[in-house]
Amino acid sequence: MTYSQSILNGDRLALSRLLTQVENDSPESRAALIELFPHTGRAHLIGVTGSPGTGKSSLVNQLALHYRKFENKRVAIVAVDPSSPFTGGAVLGDRVRMRDLAGDPGVFIRSMATRGSLGGLAQSTANMVRVFDAAGFDEIIIETVGAGQSEVDIARLAHTTLVVEAPGLGDDIQAIKAGILEIADILVVNKADRPGVEMTEKALKSMLELAHPVQHIFQHHGISMNVPVHEAKPQDHMWIPLIQRTVATEGKGIAELVESIARHVAYLTQSGDWDLRERARLEVELDALVREELVSQFRRDVPEDQYESMLEKIVQRELSPGEAVRLLMNGRFK
Amino acid sequence: MTYSQSILNGDRLALSRLLTQVENDSPESRAALIELFPHTGRAHLIGVTGSPGTGKSSLVNQLALHYRKFENKRVAIVAVDPSSPFTGGAVLGDRVRMRDLAGDPGVFIRSMATRGSLGGLAQSTANMVRVFDAAGFDEIIIETVGAGQSEVDIARLAHTTLVVEAPGLGDDIQAIKAGILEIADILVVNKADRPGVEMTEKALKSMLELAHPVQHIFQHHGISMNVPVHEAKPQDHMWIPLIQRTVATEGKGIAELVESIARHVAYLTQSGDWDLRERARLEVELDALVREELVSQFRRDVPEDQYESMLEKIVQRELSPGEAVRLLMNGRFK
Repeated sequence: MTYSQSILNGDRLALSRLLTQVENDSPESRAALIELFPHTGRAHLIGVTGSPGTGKSSLVNQLALHYRKFENKRVAIVAVDPSSPFTGGAVLGDRVRMRDLAGDPGVFIRSMATRGSLGGLAQSTANMVRVFDAAGFDEIIIETVGAGQSEVDIARLAHTTLVVEAPGLGDDIQAIKAGILEIADILVVNKADRPGVEMTEKALKSMLELAHPVQHIFQHHGISMNVPVHEAKPQDHMWIPLIQRTVATEGKGIAELVESIARHVAYLTQSGDWDLRERARLEVELDALVREELVSQFRRDVPEDQYESMLEKIVQRELSPGEAVRLLMNGRFK
Repeated sequence: MTYSQSILNGDRLALSRLLTQVENDSPESRAALIELFPHTGRAHLIGVTGSPGTGKSSLVNQLALHYRKFENKRVAIVAVDPSSPFTGGAVLGDRVRMRDLAGDPGVFIRSMATRGSLGGLAQSTANMVRVFDAAGFDEIIIETVGAGQSEVDIARLAHTTLVVEAPGLGDDIQAIKAGILEIADILVVNKADRPGVEMTEKALKSMLELAHPVQHIFQHHGISMNVPVHEAKPQDHMWIPLIQRTVATEGKGIAELVESIARHVAYLTQSGDWDLRERARLEVELDALVREELVSQFRRDVPEDQYESMLEKIVQRELSPGEAVRLLMNGRFK
C-alpha cells in the first residue's frame, strides 16, 4: 500500500514516517503529496506565535485538550522553531506535552527545527499541514517562536492567527515593530494572573487603535494596499482583532478563546475570506515553486564550472553580464 | 555612429541620451551596454547616503568641486531618490548644484527617481554607473536618500561608502537600527558647526566599538559570516570606519574627507579587496539577471490565462501545486 493510502486509512505509523519524508523533501513524499492533495482543504489552520516566555506551548496544549474533550475534534500540532538548529528545545516541549496528551489517538504532535533555508521551512511546514489535513485532522495548530519574517510567512499559512503576549516581558513595543501585530486575528494575553496585565492589555489596545483597521485587514490578507478602499467590499473590513486573557497553566480563559476562534471561522466563511485566503496562499506557493524549479533546472543544466568561467570572463571585461545571461540561456534552450 | 562609439569619443549629448535609454531599459541601451562593458572597471565609485536634512547634496557638491579644482578628475554624480515617484526633488537638487558646477565639461549630474521596482532601480543605477565609467569619469558619486534596503543595495555598488549624519536630527539610533552603519567606510558628521556635534560623534564612536570590526567588514563585503575567522586573511580586517567632521556649506573638512577617501582606495587595492568587491558585485548582478531572465522567459512562454487556470485547478483540488509546476515546465521544455 502506498503512503497516501495508508494515511487515508488512518495509519499513524505511516503518517509519522511520511512526515519525516516530507521534512527531507524525498521523492516519495513528493509523490504522496500529489496523491493526498485532493483530500485537503478541510482542516482549520490555527497559527500561534509569540516570544519565548509567553507560555505559548502551554496555551497550545490547553487548546488541544479543549478541542479533544469538549468538541471531539482531531488535533495536530506542528511546532516550528526556526531559531534552533537542533531539535533540543522542541523535544523538551514534546515531553512536557506528553503528560496531558499522550496516548490520545486523536492528537498528533510534530516538532520541526530549522533545516536549510527559512523559505524551505515554510514550504516543509505547508506540506506537513497538508498531510495532516488529508489525514482528517480537524484543527491543525502551527506554533512558531519569535516575530521575524519566518513567523510571518508561516502565519500566512493559517486561517486564524493568535499572537501571544505576557505581562512583564517588556517586549510589547518590540513585537509591534516587528510587524507581528499586523498578522494577529486574536491577541492572547497569557499569564494574565501576573502583575502588569492591565498595562499589557492597554498597550495592545492603543496599538490596535493606532493601526487603521482597514489597513490592518488588507495587509493580513495579502491584498495590495493600492486597492482603493471604496472598491473593497464592506464585509472585508469587519474583523477587528480581539484581545483575550488566559492563564494557560490553570486552563483559565481557554473556553473563551476557543469561542473567539469559532467566531473568527464564522467571519471567514461568511465574508468569503476563507476562500480568498486559500486562493492567495496557493498562488504564493505556486509562484515560489515555479521560481525554485526554474532556478534549479538552470543549475542542473549549467555546470558550476561553466557558470564560474562566465563570471571570470565578466570580471576580465571580456563579456558583459547581459551577454553572459544570453549565452547561458541560449546554451540551454537551443 | 553608435551610441557607444560617440560616448567613447566624449560626446556629451550622446551620453545624456543613452542615460535616458538606460533608465527606460531600451533595446538600444542593452546593446550599448554590451559594447561599452569592456571599457569599464576603471572608475572609483563613491556611495553617499544619509537621512534628509544631513546636507548630503551640498557635501556631494563640495566633493565634486574639490576633485575638479585640485585633482583634475572628471566627476559624475548619480542622485537616486527611491522615495520620490516624481523627479521634483531631484530636479531641485540639480538646480542648486548648477550654480557651482554648471558649464564644467568635467562634471556630469544625473537624477533618477523611482520607476518600477526597487530591484529595477538598483539595476538601472548599476547600468548608469557603467556608462559613466566607460565614458571616462574618474570619480562616480552615487547619492541616495534614507536608510532602507534600496540604499544598502545601491551602496553595494560603491567601492567606498560614506554615511552622512548631522547633529540634532535625533535619528542616530534609527540609522543604526536600519543597518546603515554596517555599510559605512567613512562616517561623515556634516553641519559640524551646530550644537550637539560632540554627542553625535560620541554616539557614532560607541556604536562602532559595539559592532565587532571583523563582523562589520565581512558583512560589508558580502562574504558569508559562516567563514571561520581564521580562514580570512589578516588584511581583510584592517579597515575600521573613520569618522570625519565637515561643514559642507563652507567647504570645511572637504580636503580631509577627500584624503580619507584616498586612504580607503589605497586600502582596497593593497588588501585585494578592490578585486573581491568587484567580483562579488558582478556575481550578484549575474545571479539577479539570470533569475529575472528565467522568470520573464517563463512568463512569455506561459500565457497568463493558462497560469490562472492552473491556479483555479489547484484551488479546486484537481491538481496539486507540485503537479502544476511539473505540467507548466513540461509544456515549455518538451
